[in-house]
Amino acid sequence: MADAPVDTVASVPVAVVGAGPAGLMLAHRLGRAGVGTIVLDTRTRHEIETTQRAGILEADVARDLVETGVSDRILREGHEHEGTGIRFGGRAHRIHFKALVGESVWLYPQTDVFIDLADARERDGGTVHFGVRDTEVLDVTTDAPRVRYTAADGSRHEIRARYVVGADGSRSMCRNLVPEDRRVRYGKEYPFAWFGIMAEAPRSAPELVYAHSEHGFALISQRTETVQRMYFQCDPDESVDAWPDDRIWETLQARVAGEDGFRLAEGPVLEKSVLRFRSFVQEPMRWGSMVLAGDAAHTVPPTGARGLNLALHDVKVLADVLLRALGGEGEAALDDYQPRALRRIWRAQNFSHWLTELLHTPPGASPFDRRRRLGELDNVVGTRAGRLYLSEQYTGWPVSAQG
Amino acid sequence: MADAPVDTVASVPVAVVGAGPAGLMLAHRLGRAGVGTIVLDTRTRHEIETTQRAGILEADVARDLVETGVSDRILREGHEHEGTGIRFGGRAHRIHFKALVGESVWLYPQTDVFIDLADARERDGGTVHFGVRDTEVLDVTTDAPRVRYTAADGSRHEIRARYVVGADGSRSMCRNLVPEDRRVRYGKEYPFAWFGIMAEAPRSAPELVYAHSEHGFALISQRTETVQRMYFQCDPDESVDAWPDDRIWETLQARVAGEDGFRLAEGPVLEKSVLRFRSFVQEPMRWGSMVLAGDAAHTVPPTGARGLNLALHDVKVLADVLLRALGGEGEAALDDYQPRALRRIWRAQNFSHWLTELLHTPPGASPFDRRRRLGELDNVVGTRAGRLYLSEQYTGWPVSAQG
Repeated sequence: MADAPVDTVASVPVAVVGAGPAGLMLAHRLGRAGVGTIVLDTRTRHEIETTQRAGILEADVARDLVETGVSDRILREGHEHEGTGIRFGGRAHRIHFKALVGESVWLYPQTDVFIDLADARERDGGTVHFGVRDTEVLDVTTDAPRVRYTAADGSRHEIRARYVVGADGSRSMCRNLVPEDRRVRYGKEYPFAWFGIMAEAPRSAPELVYAHSEHGFALISQRTETVQRMYFQCDPDESVDAWPDDRIWETLQARVAGEDGFRLAEGPVLEKSVLRFRSFVQEPMRWGSMVLAGDAAHTVPPTGARGLNLALHDVKVLADVLLRALGGEGEAALDDYQPRALRRIWRAQNFSHWLTELLHTPPGASPFDRRRRLGELDNVVGTRAGRLYLSEQYTGWPVSAQG
Repeated sequence: MADAPVDTVASVPVAVVGAGPAGLMLAHRLGRAGVGTIVLDTRTRHEIETTQRAGILEADVARDLVETGVSDRILREGHEHEGTGIRFGGRAHRIHFKALVGESVWLYPQTDVFIDLADARERDGGTVHFGVRDTEVLDVTTDAPRVRYTAADGSRHEIRARYVVGADGSRSMCRNLVPEDRRVRYGKEYPFAWFGIMAEAPRSAPELVYAHSEHGFALISQRTETVQRMYFQCDPDESVDAWPDDRIWETLQARVAGEDGFRLAEGPVLEKSVLRFRSFVQEPMRWGSMVLAGDAAHTVPPTGARGLNLALHDVKVLADVLLRALGGEGEAALDDYQPRALRRIWRAQNFSHWLTELLHTPPGASPFDRRRRLGELDNVVGTRAGRLYLSEQYTGWPVSAQG
């Protein structure tokens, strides 16, 4: 396979495996600096575009999309949220991010980030091949790695690159290129998942509402004027078939209920699915000429909305070190990537884990832990220090704090 | 027993079971308002005075000792600490409480707080009986509760009171007066304890040093110019006999070691003991005419130095409601006690639990949790929001935040 004849051979400084937001944003950043890339993805563009994925973007990340010239659509179609709601003990609390840390977040689905990036690549003449198969990454321990793949039309191709970036998501094939005895995989599974729905209904709240109740967690999010996205904590093995609309609404209403009489606006459930998640990090994030970015190297529970932001931070750092490496500093420049990326990654891992534990009610939680968690919520929302602690982590650390 | 003849019968508005800091401070506060108390303790004064107990006092608590006229000895013999040291990953970090939240803490042993309070009671003519036995609290569901006890000289006595306060510590007998089917006990055991030593050595640092290492936690505290107090995480079943001085110092040095070459000043170990701890809260804190305060109602792991502070906050609130109850509002005034006290108690329970988990390394911790904890430590000491979050909880919430 590695030396079988191919139909075409292309040479490019950086080959990118994975055309999700991380891979495309990296290609975009390198392209702006005049560095060519070829990006591959096993999924078709249509497949990615029609997979609904929610998204809360840090203000920094939203600014980068606009300022690097990807698109300013987020400013027109996204929604700036200056805070978020937290409900527990039957009461509503608001965390005013903007007042506390000077930053908002943007509600803008990951699906739209992808569309903007894919459009920008097309507009800028970048090469992205969707729907490929049989991708093989070869010779990563040399300075001439190759990527071979079969195109959608069945033809075989080879890319010769100086560096290969594995941005191939949470089921990454690239991360397996780091030999088993040279890598560490850190992980944690949770005893709950999210039951996610899209519903045809008006907005129930102007901002996200995170709800903690003795029955479990719920998250009320928004999509458009008429379509809403909501989630509630469920068993990881829950079946969507057991959940007719009535049961879904009853469960959601119970989790957000309070003395203020808050009620969700209901409507037909358009989609439902069970979303399992875990915490995961692989180290090292680089092996020879291959570097990992985004979900390929780390995933977080969705509670803190860190996943996409973290992936886009990875490629910001990675673009910088790749440009330095290609610009004359050589491979040594890549040594900076992992420590700079990892500091934020582990902070975000901790934040995502903390917020997940803070808001969910695990099956079998002890009475002490249930009660203590209410004390923690009271401290987090009831003191300025607590609100600040939450806000800084939720809106993303200043880049200067990234190390 | 309940109606057996006694040698004396005394009447007093408030009988206090337990002459630790909570019981004595309550008696002091009530005494200042002209309300009489009789305080009992099974221990002798000598026994309490010679039990070494460390102490970090909140600035509010230190001020209260001075301003309510207990003593100003803390100002002369205590040490104001404007911050604390935290070591992990081989590096030293300082959390500057004073700069962050405007408050210091005071290093002043609980043993000295006791001595000051016992002296003040004597000076002010308060009645405290040490070394009593066979204490019985009777009729707490009536408005004429009684306390019977045998004095140190063998004579039997009865106190007739309007209210009885159970301030009888972590092995409280009073809390058992709340019927089993009417009380909830929240608790958590930890898979580690503290190995505590007193050593004859100069100070190793001007402030407390909390150390997290892969080998476990250590705390470097100070006692005097020549005697120091230190602790390190150990197995709850550890035997002190297995620990000669050399092994103790080797363990402590390894846990604080770092790239800055920090070393503890060593010396002969004068005392050593294994300190087990747990998290505990009993609700309700009141049953009829009996009210619980301090360790009798709740204990915390020692990591956050909350125990004594929390007990003294309980009695501040309790003195207020007892004065109102005795002053004409009647028993209804006592309804305010539990909600006001519990809010701080559960915040402090959470803080103590959090700081304990943050700094210790439990046996069998997963690689993910070990690594995540380093990310958490980095966020807590490496960001202003994190330092503020720690500082406010460590120095104590402003009373206005107590609800």
